[in-house]
Amino acid sequence: MKSTPAPLGPKADKDTVRRNNLSLVLRAVRDVGEAGEATRAGVAARVGLTRAAVSSLVEQLLDIGFLTESGKTFSGQAGRPGTALKVARTGPAGIGVEINIDYVSVCVVDLAGTGRVRQTEHLDNRGAPPGEVLARAARIAARTLESAREQDLHPVGAALGLPGLVRGGSVHQAPNLGWNRVPAEELFANALDGLRPGRTALAVRSENEANLAALAELWFGGLDKVRSFLYLTGEIGVGGALVIDGELLRGAHGFAGEIGHVVVDPAGPECRCGSRGCLEQYAGQAALLRAAGIDGAGGVAELERRARAGDARAVAAVDGAGRMLGRVLSGAVNLLDPDAVVLGGIYRGLMPWLSPPADEELTGRVVSGLWSRDGGRLRASSVAGDAARGAAALVVRDVLTDPVAYAW
Amino acid sequence: MKSTPAPLGPKADKDTVRRNNLSLVLRAVRDVGEAGEATRAGVAARVGLTRAAVSSLVEQLLDIGFLTESGKTFSGQAGRPGTALKVARTGPAGIGVEINIDYVSVCVVDLAGTGRVRQTEHLDNRGAPPGEVLARAARIAARTLESAREQDLHPVGAALGLPGLVRGGSVHQAPNLGWNRVPAEELFANALDGLRPGRTALAVRSENEANLAALAELWFGGLDKVRSFLYLTGEIGVGGALVIDGELLRGAHGFAGEIGHVVVDPAGPECRCGSRGCLEQYAGQAALLRAAGIDGAGGVAELERRARAGDARAVAAVDGAGRMLGRVLSGAVNLLDPDAVVLGGIYRGLMPWLSPPADEELTGRVVSGLWSRDGGRLRASSVAGDAARGAAALVVRDVLTDPVAYAW
Repeated sequence: MKSTPAPLGPKADKDTVRRNNLSLVLRAVRDVGEAGEATRAGVAARVGLTRAAVSSLVEQLLDIGFLTESGKTFSGQAGRPGTALKVARTGPAGIGVEINIDYVSVCVVDLAGTGRVRQTEHLDNRGAPPGEVLARAARIAARTLESAREQDLHPVGAALGLPGLVRGGSVHQAPNLGWNRVPAEELFANALDGLRPGRTALAVRSENEANLAALAELWFGGLDKVRSFLYLTGEIGVGGALVIDGELLRGAHGFAGEIGHVVVDPAGPECRCGSRGCLEQYAGQAALLRAAGIDGAGGVAELERRARAGDARAVAAVDGAGRMLGRVLSGAVNLLDPDAVVLGGIYRGLMPWLSPPADEELTGRVVSGLWSRDGGRLRASSVAGDAARGAAALVVRDVLTDPVAYAW
Repeated sequence: MKSTPAPLGPKADKDTVRRNNLSLVLRAVRDVGEAGEATRAGVAARVGLTRAAVSSLVEQLLDIGFLTESGKTFSGQAGRPGTALKVARTGPAGIGVEINIDYVSVCVVDLAGTGRVRQTEHLDNRGAPPGEVLARAARIAARTLESAREQDLHPVGAALGLPGLVRGGSVHQAPNLGWNRVPAEELFANALDGLRPGRTALAVRSENEANLAALAELWFGGLDKVRSFLYLTGEIGVGGALVIDGELLRGAHGFAGEIGHVVVDPAGPECRCGSRGCLEQYAGQAALLRAAGIDGAGGVAELERRARAGDARAVAAVDGAGRMLGRVLSGAVNLLDPDAVVLGGIYRGLMPWLSPPADEELTGRVVSGLWSRDGGRLRASSVAGDAARGAAALVVRDVLTDPVAYAW
């Protein structure tokens, strides 16, 4: 019975407390700012510090340019009018770079979490060696950084989103890219540094792209009370991520969430992962288009168009994929009992035809009998699985956690 | 981005700190006591408090009878010899009651986590109404409490383990018992109170039995560094539980872990849960015995005997179940990337025939390619899925967390 409430530590030193409280106040202003106007009094009430303490912390955040204030506002409560506080739209930021099979998307996010600059290029990353793909992504990132500078936004770090098993800065395996043991962070950082002579090198981190898309959904998706969910993103592959109590579940090796390789039929078609009959072979983009009789050129847009027009083959293809998704999801729901299942990527636009068969399987196969009664547990992603924004926001989270460390 | 480090609270008051530190010291003595002799100096070093503070806390724990001391011990380090401290073998304890399909097992655990009294009755709980089953369990518990009293052990609460979906004190659904919405805690508590006139009523809680077995494995199973694992227990049904970073994952409704109802074949045999082709229909006890051609009388002991004797049908039955387990587990491992998968209940004794096909499926189907390389990730439960001990230990955990609350 190694249950372990932590020992009550020695009283934290003053500097640590102040840095922590600066973070609290900054985040409170951001959170209130989403819904209305933040004042010193409102922030004090929210974080449980005195009005005087909050005023002093706000001054420091104004000084380092992380907050701005404007006009007078009347809170409706007794007392003096306050000025409205806002998180600064300039200064520290994060840059996220999603490298997927057939596109690269780069996003710069400001302190408020708002996406401010975006560059996306559609291209086939399967054709080129990993070093070249990462160098191309670095070129797009460098251009995006220039645009950000013009808006006086200064990313303090970069995060890469990659469609595979990512650990310790490397891609262990990305079957659909054909990558094995690629030191992605290093290759990208070196390429980016080479493009920005004289500039400070950016710290680079990397993460599975579905994990980042799930974080974007958690942070920006308006999920309300949903804190535990399973996130699926339909792409060339089928990516997945698990968020439990508002945190990513990474697993023992950092490889959790690989729902695309849950077996549907043990004797089914070979999968690039080495197994057979994985979900990806039934509900991935290639399988969907093939079943609908659409060649690469038309793509998912054409599939959506045909389904909307009532094309029987297209509807049947999506219905079949939805049924397979539902079966695999019913197992995952029996295992995890999440608040919700969120479908992103190409699934988002296909929900009208995908969701009914998936929901039917879930209703029939989830043991609690609560699947249908609760309602609304299967839902479309609100931001189309935006891994780049999630990546950029991951960098910004560091700034919000300890603003002083990023002041200049 | 609602990431939420908690505000640094006001300094905890003295009483809270002292109660917390009493818990720390008590648990330190228990943990050290598992491996060697605990002294005041050793405990002080372990918990990071001064020797003087620990001495004072130890005195209080000796006073209330939660610790005992004996003899002099030489630690091998400089300084005076200390006396060896031990967690008391009498006083506060926990009682756990596992009600399964074909048995009831009751266990009393002392402060050190040691099982001290055990009563198990094999009987068929499917035949009787829920109230009668719970009354019978209460009678067994009452007799066990008498035995505990003779050893001067005084359970401060009871925990029920039940083979189904348990929430808010009730069994929402237990397909193999045929229970729906049974207020198990209340029925059990009333029956137990009726059997112990004049005694203080015991607080009763309830939990899914696989969850409790997984906790027993975590606390007493010698799992070493394994902190995240998937636990399966083969019984009439197939129960499951997830432990993530040393904590049970309960899920949105408290129903997580139902791996027995992950679908293997969507058109397979009907399951009592209402779905079709669930894992339970291929790897549950009934399916195993049927495939081996063994009727109810012989049971799992007979299946083990025949497999050991090389009976082809018995070996094939277990092999087939292992293959199905492996397929479902590969999906769960792709989803969760746990440190280990632990098989308990009837699977424990069947491992020689069950484990090779399961491991083969896992090796072929887990995407990371790390399944086989890491080794030892599929393992037999060390305590045969002892839900009753886990239940009793759950009660004891409360005592260890705040000893003062349970002092008399």
